[in-house]
Amino acid sequence: MIASGVTGIAYETVETPDRRLPLLMPMSEVAGRMATQVGATFLQRNHGGRGVLMGGVPGVAPANVAILGAGTVGANAARVAVGMGAQVTVVDINHDRLQYLDDIYTGALQTRASNEYNIEEVVYEADLVIGAVLIPGGRAPSLVTRTMLQEMRNGSVIVDVAVDQGGCIETSRPTTHSNPTYVIDGVVHYCVANMPGAVPRTSTFALVNQTMTYTLRLAGDGINAIRNSQPLCLGLNTHRGQLTYAAVAEAFGMDYVAPLKALAS
Amino acid sequence: MIASGVTGIAYETVETPDRRLPLLMPMSEVAGRMATQVGATFLQRNHGGRGVLMGGVPGVAPANVAILGAGTVGANAARVAVGMGAQVTVVDINHDRLQYLDDIYTGALQTRASNEYNIEEVVYEADLVIGAVLIPGGRAPSLVTRTMLQEMRNGSVIVDVAVDQGGCIETSRPTTHSNPTYVIDGVVHYCVANMPGAVPRTSTFALVNQTMTYTLRLAGDGINAIRNSQPLCLGLNTHRGQLTYAAVAEAFGMDYVAPLKALAS
Amino acid sequence: MIASGVTGIAYETVETPDRRLPLLMPMSEVAGRMATQVGATFLQRNHGGRGVLMGGVPGVAPANVAILGAGTVGANAARVAVGMGAQVTVVDINHDRLQYLDDIYTGALQTRASNEYNIEEVVYEADLVIGAVLIPGGRAPSLVTRTMLQEMRNGSVIVDVAVDQGGCIETSRPTTHSNPTYVIDGVVHYCVANMPGAVPRTSTFALVNQTMTYTLRLAGDGINAIRNSQPLCLGLNTHRGQLTYAAVAEAFGMDYVAPLKALAS
Amino acid sequence: MIASGVTGIAYETVETPDRRLPLLMPMSEVAGRMATQVGATFLQRNHGGRGVLMGGVPGVAPANVAILGAGTVGANAARVAVGMGAQVTVVDINHDRLQYLDDIYTGALQTRASNEYNIEEVVYEADLVIGAVLIPGGRAPSLVTRTMLQEMRNGSVIVDVAVDQGGCIETSRPTTHSNPTYVIDGVVHYCVANMPGAVPRTSTFALVNQTMTYTLRLAGDGINAIRNSQPLCLGLNTHRGQLTYAAVAEAFGMDYVAPLKALAS
Amino acid sequence: MIASGVTGIAYETVETPDRRLPLLMPMSEVAGRMATQVGATFLQRNHGGRGVLMGGVPGVAPANVAILGAGTVGANAARVAVGMGAQVTVVDINHDRLQYLDDIYTGALQTRASNEYNIEEVVYEADLVIGAVLIPGGRAPSLVTRTMLQEMRNGSVIVDVAVDQGGCIETSRPTTHSNPTYVIDGVVHYCVANMPGAVPRTSTFALVNQTMTYTLRLAGDGINAIRNSQPLCLGLNTHRGQLTYAAVAEAFGMDYVAPLKALAS
Amino acid sequence: MIASGVTGIAYETVETPDRRLPLLMPMSEVAGRMATQVGATFLQRNHGGRGVLMGGVPGVAPANVAILGAGTVGANAARVAVGMGAQVTVVDINHDRLQYLDDIYTGALQTRASNEYNIEEVVYEADLVIGAVLIPGGRAPSLVTRTMLQEMRNGSVIVDVAVDQGGCIETSRPTTHSNPTYVIDGVVHYCVANMPGAVPRTSTFALVNQTMTYTLRLAGDGINAIRNSQPLCLGLNTHRGQLTYAAVAEAFGMDYVAPLKALAS
Repeated sequence: MIASGVTGIAYETVETPDRRLPLLMPMSEVAGRMATQVGATFLQRNHGGRGVLMGGVPGVAPANVAILGAGTVGANAARVAVGMGAQVTVVDINHDRLQYLDDIYTGALQTRASNEYNIEEVVYEADLVIGAVLIPGGRAPSLVTRTMLQEMRNGSVIVDVAVDQGGCIETSRPTTHSNPTYVIDGVVHYCVANMPGAVPRTSTFALVNQTMTYTLRLAGDGINAIRNSQPLCLGLNTHRGQLTYAAVAEAFGMDYVAPLKALAS
Repeated sequence: MIASGVTGIAYETVETPDRRLPLLMPMSEVAGRMATQVGATFLQRNHGGRGVLMGGVPGVAPANVAILGAGTVGANAARVAVGMGAQVTVVDINHDRLQYLDDIYTGALQTRASNEYNIEEVVYEADLVIGAVLIPGGRAPSLVTRTMLQEMRNGSVIVDVAVDQGGCIETSRPTTHSNPTYVIDGVVHYCVANMPGAVPRTSTFALVNQTMTYTLRLAGDGINAIRNSQPLCLGLNTHRGQLTYAAVAEAFGMDYVAPLKALAS
Repeated sequence: MIASGVTGIAYETVETPDRRLPLLMPMSEVAGRMATQVGATFLQRNHGGRGVLMGGVPGVAPANVAILGAGTVGANAARVAVGMGAQVTVVDINHDRLQYLDDIYTGALQTRASNEYNIEEVVYEADLVIGAVLIPGGRAPSLVTRTMLQEMRNGSVIVDVAVDQGGCIETSRPTTHSNPTYVIDGVVHYCVANMPGAVPRTSTFALVNQTMTYTLRLAGDGINAIRNSQPLCLGLNTHRGQLTYAAVAEAFGMDYVAPLKALAS
Repeated sequence: MIASGVTGIAYETVETPDRRLPLLMPMSEVAGRMATQVGATFLQRNHGGRGVLMGGVPGVAPANVAILGAGTVGANAARVAVGMGAQVTVVDINHDRLQYLDDIYTGALQTRASNEYNIEEVVYEADLVIGAVLIPGGRAPSLVTRTMLQEMRNGSVIVDVAVDQGGCIETSRPTTHSNPTYVIDGVVHYCVANMPGAVPRTSTFALVNQTMTYTLRLAGDGINAIRNSQPLCLGLNTHRGQLTYAAVAEAFGMDYVAPLKALAS
Repeated sequence: MIASGVTGIAYETVETPDRRLPLLMPMSEVAGRMATQVGATFLQRNHGGRGVLMGGVPGVAPANVAILGAGTVGANAARVAVGMGAQVTVVDINHDRLQYLDDIYTGALQTRASNEYNIEEVVYEADLVIGAVLIPGGRAPSLVTRTMLQEMRNGSVIVDVAVDQGGCIETSRPTTHSNPTYVIDGVVHYCVANMPGAVPRTSTFALVNQTMTYTLRLAGDGINAIRNSQPLCLGLNTHRGQLTYAAVAEAFGMDYVAPLKALAS
Repeated sequence: MIASGVTGIAYETVETPDRRLPLLMPMSEVAGRMATQVGATFLQRNHGGRGVLMGGVPGVAPANVAILGAGTVGANAARVAVGMGAQVTVVDINHDRLQYLDDIYTGALQTRASNEYNIEEVVYEADLVIGAVLIPGGRAPSLVTRTMLQEMRNGSVIVDVAVDQGGCIETSRPTTHSNPTYVIDGVVHYCVANMPGAVPRTSTFALVNQTMTYTLRLAGDGINAIRNSQPLCLGLNTHRGQLTYAAVAEAFGMDYVAPLKALAS
């Protein structure tokens, strides 16, 4: 890209002043809601799971779902899990997020502060564990370790939504839609790196909804649009042969030029 | 009563053709809702309980409440327990009732078919057990036995709403509002025989709502009202020195006269 | 069975006085809830569907789900569909059932009276059609005809829960868990005859909950239990070499003996 | 006002540091909730509409309501529409607002990102369109154009809450409570400029709730209250013959004096 | 009709074995939901009411709505009133109905047993009173008397849905859509006899949904359909010059012939 | 502490940049939820109250609960009150908070702007008044005065959660768990200063959830942790014999040293 002199903006680096990543968010929403759906599928016996129906039926216990993380992915996963009738517990270190979920779902799900004790407790009780901890720009911590798998039920399922950023489950490694799962210590792992790709119609609309605003500005004002929009400016990676994204420059040991300076050239 | 020749109708024997006891029902509603309230109170450490708050708070587990019976008492107890934010499981043998609660609360409570295995599981998990099984005209079965108490948590609470009909907890015996609880094997027992007496304002209105219909008929038509109303007729105990309620006659070894025959005399 | 002289009671013929089939009901509940779950799965592009996420995401339309039938199967399918965030319409001829769903879900789903006009309208709008019409003891009518498929969206999905009783979709024929779907006119058909078999843990508990009552009676009273229980009596198929179920006798051109008469022999 | 030398503060110019207009907000809440109510009324056939009942009845489709804008007006309109049982879709460019409504109403309404394609789709499907886009200090864009009316159903209704700021419907022009509607291309337009005036009791309380705080400060501290309160200072229009509101000064080609400077005189 | 010899079945006399009137029910549903909607409209000051918005706004009290009757009309009126955010109290003598509404709306509305004391209390507190008591085949009792109007608030509104059967408000008399209200003692009376006529699209679909079943049977089997259907048989008014509906015969002093006998002629 | 030279951080002075007190919040959540629970208990006749059941029963009015304050305490108290089925009104001056509660509970509670008129109205109607106004660092205003008690119902209950900061009820003075209430003018006052102490299990978990983050930092980095964390720095009271909290210094007339300066010593 540098050689070609192209002006390049990466989806995943467009960032608002309050440090959110608007072009990634719709994919987190899709992945969160899909995580529960695929978890339900792989809990079926014919897909290797325990043979438990998410919502149970009157008189029979529903599936127990532990969701690690109450951000966009976790909240969306929780919503579908509650909707399907599962018994849901969401774990996070952010009290404000737990409070919000507690307000919205008043009693239909439970929340726990994230610490080793609580994570072990909810994971060992769970039929389905959804890993939904994403640390922007860094590898998520391994909240579920290899050792912990042995205490989990045979046929239980882990869906690690964070897998494309390293995952928050020690034993997770990226899989594909054509070969989505593998089993370790009797626990089914679903770690498809590009989950939203399975629902392209929904994902494309969701993505376009977010990008359209920026695209229209770029189409109208060209380079000036980048100068005048902090998110685009923060997302600029290359311009006229210059590397304008600090983390990439550092990672590759290349020279970094500040976006506004590069644009002025 | 027989000596006095009085025409006597007992509240608890007035019975509709479909075998419901309309004058007892409001008391079941009051007792059911109150059961959870007093359970919450005695879970407080200063009242001898585990020191657990019914609804927990965001990040902390709520109380676990097991309700044995999904009839009027159980359904009303469940409602308040769900409302206070507890994790609630209702046990009954009647699938229709479980289905109805499952429909009404969609996911906010769980249901289990009543059998030994399920009862043990939910009771051992519970901070609060509410005994809500009433067998009309018979002693309720002892669903929680003395042995089971030992597996319960220290400081957990049992409220036996059925205590005035023998109770559905082996270790329950009637107590009073002035001395409502006792402790066996570390489990607080609340077994006040006349729970609705604590909320006389609500209870009186509830009772009058039901009795007024019958009272007005009696006031208007006198003895004829009994003849023409199956519930009143079934509820007649004595008339002109005759004993007209079979179960009482049998219990005391006295002569029984059918109500309509007695009224004709 | 007749040759062996065995006393045989069939699950699917045990029938309560109000004509319900208590031993089949839990399977209808399981199948109904599972129908939506598998429908969601096969709407994924990687399973041949339109690539639509059941609940959509904020700003993007959810899947449109048409449920034909508001009985046990349909109501349970609707519940999961609403819970997953889909736009749900339930069609039935029974106004009481529509009214009940309308009460329970107040606004979260829609209901339509069942007639040709309404069925076409909701089916053509749907991403997912769930066939949930079961006529006890008879083939369900073909509510969705072959011709109608051509008006449906490419990649839409039909789940015919009624397939093991002939189905309520003209083009449905039984499939298996190992090869669950086929495509006609661009519409994915999921017609696994034994859906609850995929969640054996939940299904077994559900079934046992219902059968246990009858099993205990049979274990305790033997043949007498059948005599004294109308559901068991209605469910009796063979006894001491006699055929006691009228429909079977008629189907095979054999002699029919009334259950009570056979039991008296 | 300038001639009289009065110190004038306008309701609609009092503005908090985060650019909200606290004295207008209650009127937006009232207008939003009323918009659905009047929309329901004019959908009645005897008021010129399609003759559709907002919530339908079991078995019959409810009205389809499209709400353009998810701000205070739109959210309040949506709430009443959902409450009345309509099928509701809310359109906005602000993803955070759509997400919030999606959280609060989980499935009882739908959201769409605002773009030409989506607006056309939801407007053409709608029985009732509520225009709820207000651009502070500017004319709202014409989201529904004259051409689009022709694709709308005969007897459908448009309520343009934004009409007093130019409206967000091309064909809307202010009407009055005594003559509230007119018809263009078969579409009933309700464009009363002062909707809250129809519910003066509610509106007055709502307004006083907001103004009281400021009034008390002014009563207590006089001119100093303006100096010390940024909202009041921003809302100052005239003081001792000086014009202190920039937009007004510009519009009338008059001299502008900054509020704090004017107050110091 | 008798002279013409026509076989006549009246909508309002078709009656199921459990004494329900299936062809009237959809109209009760429509009228109930519409009652709240028109009540909201006439509470507006520009229509003569108190100027109160049904749902209030945050910080301001909503309208207080009293609904007399918890049958089909009352339940549907309650639903819309709750949905619009009003404070709702439903009064009935039928405890089962109050219990059902209490279950469905858990806390979002209140219920009161019907007696003089409670009716006065809720009516005097109300901004809007909805009369929803219909006694099949008889005049509804006057639950709100002329004297009580004087204790009601000025500008409050009464909607008497029962007006076409005599009404349950002493001062109600039928009005029309073109002149729907009149005022007595400061209370606005809305007593349109044919409320569903205002939403013909919804009403027609609702009516057809119910009648279609019967119509199809009549079209297929002719007179035999009446013989074989208890509802149709009960609804038969005339056949071959004979009068077959007892109440009508009695009212006009004419000869009555039992339906089956007349059909056999 | 100064003499000992200890580095002291007080729970109640740790403060985030946006002026929240994270270590006090969990106690407000516990106290808020408990306030309703103890209010329900003391409304029982056997505890001196009116004998009203919080949720009433079908046909009988529930308790009327007035909550003064919509902050953390008030919102949590409201949640349990709504859940128990009471009729709830929340009063606050903060419109944003009222709007949020109005959104979350859509119609299940009411909100009122805080002013003398509204407070009197809701307090006089209430069976239970919960005082939940806490002014950080200052005595809360006396919203309920001695005079107002005389207009309250005999046997009504006041729970003043703010009592340990002076209370928001004129007649409240701190009590203890062993002697929790006293009666003035017929109104039961519950003013236990340390309410969360009654549910130590829940409270301890809640507190540890919040403190753990800070504790881990202190354990890892020692004094540096204070330097690098604004909340800890703001919460520092003493360090090496220096007084570093301004309000305390002022109150005791001692010398104040800024935290960062003291830490540098």
